[in-house]
Amino acid sequence: MELRDTLDQSALERPAEVDWFQYKLKHVDVTSKARRGEFVTPHGVVQTPAFMPVGTQGTVKGLEIGLVHQTGAEMILGNTYHLSLRPGDDIVAELGGLHKFMGWHGPILTDSGGFQIFSLAQMRKVTEKEAIFQSHIDGRKIHLSPERSIEIQENLGSDIAMVLDHVVELPNETKVIREAMNRSIRWAKRCQDAATRKDQAQFAIVQGGLDEGLRVECAQRLTELEFPGYAIGGLSVGEPPPEMYRILDATCPALPTNKPRYLMGVGRPEDLLEGIRRGVDLFDCVMPTRNGRNALAFTDEGTVRVRNAKYQRDSTPLDPKSVPQVAGLSRAYFRHLFMAKEMLGPILLSLHNVAYYQRLMREARQAIEEDRFEAYYEQKMAGWSSGG
Amino acid sequence: MELRDTLDQSALERPAEVDWFQYKLKHVDVTSKARRGEFVTPHGVVQTPAFMPVGTQGTVKGLEIGLVHQTGAEMILGNTYHLSLRPGDDIVAELGGLHKFMGWHGPILTDSGGFQIFSLAQMRKVTEKEAIFQSHIDGRKIHLSPERSIEIQENLGSDIAMVLDHVVELPNETKVIREAMNRSIRWAKRCQDAATRKDQAQFAIVQGGLDEGLRVECAQRLTELEFPGYAIGGLSVGEPPPEMYRILDATCPALPTNKPRYLMGVGRPEDLLEGIRRGVDLFDCVMPTRNGRNALAFTDEGTVRVRNAKYQRDSTPLDPKSVPQVAGLSRAYFRHLFMAKEMLGPILLSLHNVAYYQRLMREARQAIEEDRFEAYYEQKMAGWSSGG
Repeated sequence: MELRDTLDQSALERPAEVDWFQYKLKHVDVTSKARRGEFVTPHGVVQTPAFMPVGTQGTVKGLEIGLVHQTGAEMILGNTYHLSLRPGDDIVAELGGLHKFMGWHGPILTDSGGFQIFSLAQMRKVTEKEAIFQSHIDGRKIHLSPERSIEIQENLGSDIAMVLDHVVELPNETKVIREAMNRSIRWAKRCQDAATRKDQAQFAIVQGGLDEGLRVECAQRLTELEFPGYAIGGLSVGEPPPEMYRILDATCPALPTNKPRYLMGVGRPEDLLEGIRRGVDLFDCVMPTRNGRNALAFTDEGTVRVRNAKYQRDSTPLDPKSVPQVAGLSRAYFRHLFMAKEMLGPILLSLHNVAYYQRLMREARQAIEEDRFEAYYEQKMAGWSSGG
Repeated sequence: MELRDTLDQSALERPAEVDWFQYKLKHVDVTSKARRGEFVTPHGVVQTPAFMPVGTQGTVKGLEIGLVHQTGAEMILGNTYHLSLRPGDDIVAELGGLHKFMGWHGPILTDSGGFQIFSLAQMRKVTEKEAIFQSHIDGRKIHLSPERSIEIQENLGSDIAMVLDHVVELPNETKVIREAMNRSIRWAKRCQDAATRKDQAQFAIVQGGLDEGLRVECAQRLTELEFPGYAIGGLSVGEPPPEMYRILDATCPALPTNKPRYLMGVGRPEDLLEGIRRGVDLFDCVMPTRNGRNALAFTDEGTVRVRNAKYQRDSTPLDPKSVPQVAGLSRAYFRHLFMAKEMLGPILLSLHNVAYYQRLMREARQAIEEDRFEAYYEQKMAGWSSGG
């Protein structure tokens, strides 16, 4: 019972309502723009920079939620689109909200469904009022307006709700990108107006494609609406990484320094460090769990394909600094699990990868505190390109 | 690091070699033949009656091994046939043995391969020298003699090795069953002669089909060979449960009281209690994990099919007395995980079922100590037939 009691305890000891959703910038690295901060939510404090494991359907795929906690993850992401279709946000609400439903007692951020409309849904149509599309599960027609997105997220009871945004393919005509950006800003305002829960904050999402001018304009106009946090959306959709870094270079300085900055859906370990050194505070990505299921491990020497025959008798661990559940296991054992098609392979490698991302964030936070983030960044990049 | 340190610690504090493999009969229930005992192994003491979760291929399917430990399981089972084919017992030995390979630091029992020859292998042929059969993985021809079975199990480094036995289909001619029994006894002696490890005990296996006379004869002849433990094999292969109970009624009294008794491959919760009240000490079965993967939960009210639509909004847990990882989760959440085809469904339901079996054993041990096993048995049987 110890673990659960501890978790419940921390929920009980949550700060008074007045402090919720404050971002405290504790330190800026002198060698880069990397920021060390704290963000307060009704379910606990998040130390930033932070990486949120993705719990699309009310589960961080393959991982008992206590194990996710043990990796050091403080906040996880839930998915508005998926959970509204199955089991249904009304059912989650009836069962006490997403925290209770999935047994995670720390902070939860829910996305708005905007990205899933863009990436998953068939026959989508976006009007000023709402997005209309077919469910990827049963083809049923779904209406998702900014107001409905917030209603879903309030039903789920997340600590942070994302505004509904209009994501478009890249590359695209400037006119199309500008229209989607303008709509995203109008929708952000509508989300703000629709909010009824005091224990849930909304983050706005900066759009504008790969156009620096549009990004800056969007950031400024959303800043005027005074959200408690700002996301950078519509990236990591296939553009070359340097394009993404260029947009971060332009966008981060246009965002308020006293609010957290969240780069949505990103990414590889190198993308995280590239984001942090440009002033990003929050990340999420399915990569640690998805790659874990596909036998690909993140390590300090770059990615490792654990099915490779060269690991057949390899007694070395993937990461001796990982959580105890995997730190003592050999590469040979991981290979065996995948060769034998055992569920435990995807499970333990997802755990390893999530733990690796969390260790990366812990190290990054410490490097910022000690004003040596650029040296840390150089060291990690060198290791990752060493090829194991 | 706490969990692993604790486990390693207990391995270090193992008793002096002289005590290994002693069975201490602590108490016999006055209301039945149920026995409360302790069995000492190089990797720790096992409180009996005990249920061993099955780790066929070096993993209790779907369960991070620390979670298995947290259910209260003290000993697990590994599979000679599967591990010798993949990854190979030579590789497991090179990597430090099965305990280290899979990260389980408690006692391990390995079966001999006899049952897998019977149930899995194609084109098997059994001679006095050995069993010859095709691998179910690649069709390769495998020779498994009593000596080779012990060599594999010594390579795996289990605490308890099972002798190679000759399992035959039931029903069958008495002549065939008698021949297989006689061969099993000769093979048991050859296994005994082949042993080289002082830190591994061998258990003999009583055969004899559904013939009480043959079972008693086999038990007596094996008892003369003075093994540190005795198994009852060749049951739970499709015969009606009362037939199995009849064979236990005949066989248990023919076994020495100062040695542990292990009923192989059994079974359902009711079979465990039926075995215990006839004097059985050890059990193993894939049922908790296999049924867990198939959305079937064991509970005090009988089995529960968690996909059932009636659980869609059911906020009650499957078992409030379970391990904390599942005790607080609703039936609705379990249903959601299976409906959404999430890996976590099979994972958490396997965990629930293994924990349920371990709670059953804890309760049974306490009931024996308090001389109320029959009352406990009646109470559980009534609950299981209440139909939830």
